[in-house]
Amino acid sequence: MNIVEIITKKKSKLELTREELEFAFNGYLNGNVKDYQMSALLMAICLNGMTDSETFNLVDIFIKSGDVLDLSSIPGVKVDKHSTGGIGDKITLIIGPIVSSCGVIVPKMSGRGLGFTGGTIDKLESIKGFKVQLTEEEFIRQVKEIGFAVTGQTSNLCPLDKVIYALRDVTGTTDSIPLIAASIMSKKIAGGADKIFIDIKCGNGAMMKTMEDALKLKDIMVRIGDFYNRKTICEISDMNVPLGSNIGNSLEVIEAMDVLKGKTGSLRDLSIKISTEMVSVAKEISMEDAKKEVLNVLDKGIAYNKFLEFVKYQKGDINSLEVSKNIQEIKSDKNGKVITINALNIGKLSCSLGAGRVSKEDSIDYSVGIVLNKLVDDEVKVGDTLFTLYKKDNNNIDININDYYDIK
Amino acid sequence: MNIVEIITKKKSKLELTREELEFAFNGYLNGNVKDYQMSALLMAICLNGMTDSETFNLVDIFIKSGDVLDLSSIPGVKVDKHSTGGIGDKITLIIGPIVSSCGVIVPKMSGRGLGFTGGTIDKLESIKGFKVQLTEEEFIRQVKEIGFAVTGQTSNLCPLDKVIYALRDVTGTTDSIPLIAASIMSKKIAGGADKIFIDIKCGNGAMMKTMEDALKLKDIMVRIGDFYNRKTICEISDMNVPLGSNIGNSLEVIEAMDVLKGKTGSLRDLSIKISTEMVSVAKEISMEDAKKEVLNVLDKGIAYNKFLEFVKYQKGDINSLEVSKNIQEIKSDKNGKVITINALNIGKLSCSLGAGRVSKEDSIDYSVGIVLNKLVDDEVKVGDTLFTLYKKDNNNIDININDYYDIK
Repeated sequence: MNIVEIITKKKSKLELTREELEFAFNGYLNGNVKDYQMSALLMAICLNGMTDSETFNLVDIFIKSGDVLDLSSIPGVKVDKHSTGGIGDKITLIIGPIVSSCGVIVPKMSGRGLGFTGGTIDKLESIKGFKVQLTEEEFIRQVKEIGFAVTGQTSNLCPLDKVIYALRDVTGTTDSIPLIAASIMSKKIAGGADKIFIDIKCGNGAMMKTMEDALKLKDIMVRIGDFYNRKTICEISDMNVPLGSNIGNSLEVIEAMDVLKGKTGSLRDLSIKISTEMVSVAKEISMEDAKKEVLNVLDKGIAYNKFLEFVKYQKGDINSLEVSKNIQEIKSDKNGKVITINALNIGKLSCSLGAGRVSKEDSIDYSVGIVLNKLVDDEVKVGDTLFTLYKKDNNNIDININDYYDIK
Repeated sequence: MNIVEIITKKKSKLELTREELEFAFNGYLNGNVKDYQMSALLMAICLNGMTDSETFNLVDIFIKSGDVLDLSSIPGVKVDKHSTGGIGDKITLIIGPIVSSCGVIVPKMSGRGLGFTGGTIDKLESIKGFKVQLTEEEFIRQVKEIGFAVTGQTSNLCPLDKVIYALRDVTGTTDSIPLIAASIMSKKIAGGADKIFIDIKCGNGAMMKTMEDALKLKDIMVRIGDFYNRKTICEISDMNVPLGSNIGNSLEVIEAMDVLKGKTGSLRDLSIKISTEMVSVAKEISMEDAKKEVLNVLDKGIAYNKFLEFVKYQKGDINSLEVSKNIQEIKSDKNGKVITINALNIGKLSCSLGAGRVSKEDSIDYSVGIVLNKLVDDEVKVGDTLFTLYKKDNNNIDININDYYDIK
């Protein structure tokens, strides 16, 4: 077997065997296959796709490249939640406390953000002292005691996925449905939860641009979950418009807390929807009953207290959150109604302010970001503030409003 | 501009601008673009193709990455000849002496072989002392004096093509028509000849497997030549069957000499055909007149003497050619007629005997190879020798005749 023949086979749209996939992918992990060979193979996969059999084999190879977390010592049903990533997506910080307040165990492994989509780990690091990397023992102890913990991926969980993910990011090979499915599902299965909830973001600010692609991703992920006997539920949610009002690390943590304290709007609505589904699936109760539980812990402040307990348990100081004082308000130059807000462009703008990474080595400024003062359907008059930039310094940024807001 | 966006653009089948191609390819040469990024781009090009505009721009970027040879001090019409590579293709060693004996200047830059196709430079190195790397001054002086010289690519002729070619070879991205056209034509144009003759090999033992692909390659190469005002003539010739009887470095030099000394057969026929076209194009005379000149220098031994003069000028000792004494004859197990001989499998077998390289670091054994004792259309009886292996040692090699000869 040789890697050039394997690449050529995939390039010719032929199906790779289990052995060929192992040769290529395990070979990359142990250094026998070079990064320039793996990136050629990944591009061929992006353009020619993978069969179901190839995708299932790849998931299994990813899982077997490292350890599988054993959560069996934790009583109760464990539900993991994952989002495919979008602009302003701080849902994990809201539904984790809600769902665990309802008695469902949420052992959550998260990633860092790259490009214009933020990662939960980065958001939590905007809280001073917050420990994002727990040992397996710490993680299990915390989940047992308070029902919710968030940690970065442990070093030996799907190590193969980790190196492939990093390579995909710098070679333009991210948007392949089988590769996305394999990456997410291998980590979720190795993470040890009984049930898996995936929030598939769909729209211009997400990896999946069309409903057709989102449905394909849903289909393959559900079937992978079935194969490993882990019930997998996928929700497809809109990502043409940023989620909520705040984009940026500290700003998103603050908005998550606002929602847990009762702030209404579409972010709360989606959080309730996802929490309800998770509670319903985990407890095997009706959606109606699940929703009652969710509203109860939310409205009584139980979920908010759970959030504070969670932050404190992971050594974070919630009073440390800092938002930049260098503010620039972007004001409307016309009257009308907000038709849409371009998620992708808002994400890129936030990234350029310093809230996200362009390359893996970049450092993040947790205090910068964007607050959307006007949301979709809001009426707007000339001179009204549409959105506010929180910047590193006081240098003026030239903004073409039409790139971000469509007002008619 | 950033390389991931450029890769993504090509992946999405959008046309790259001149600036984007320069950013990517020149960036690779100067180290700003990594090999794993270039290989992803090359794979996207293999699968999505290149527009004419992209291909022309790439040729120009390749040429401008290095020096252009100035042959204007050499009087007469200079014709370069190139073969896209096949099994047993020693044509250059035959037509160079013939055409230069007819008064046409043949300044030939050649490459090394990789994989199962041999390179002229490797073949010449089987002659002890033969100097394959001439300086520009040596090259021009020799061409002026005897009309024919062969040298390896000078280090600063299309250096970008050199690194891209090496990367393509180890990443399964060789068989792209625009990449092949750009690689060949940039070197030929930078090589400085007035007219360019390309022998496009087509069949299972060649890069171009189908006539359709061969015609596409011909079309784009002719148009590139036109653009640079270098008349380009392409001959498409069969490579389903090895060319001539001998495969392997010393063995091929010997067969080239045999043809120059008068040996008949399909190799002589093709050599006469190509030589005639080159002489006709270079001298702007009819094919009929050109053929007369070709037959004259061939039949009178003038071309053979030119070959000896050429070898001597480049310090080679023609009496040093060595062929291995470790012989294994493969005998027919049936009666019938040779329908075809599988060029690809013969090429791979010769390579496995040590006549070719599998990776760039491999060394070549010049004395090994294969002689085809029976050719297509020959009658065969049980026990007749079909072909003979010239091996490194006396270990027996297990041969399944059906992989090589189709006898019916």
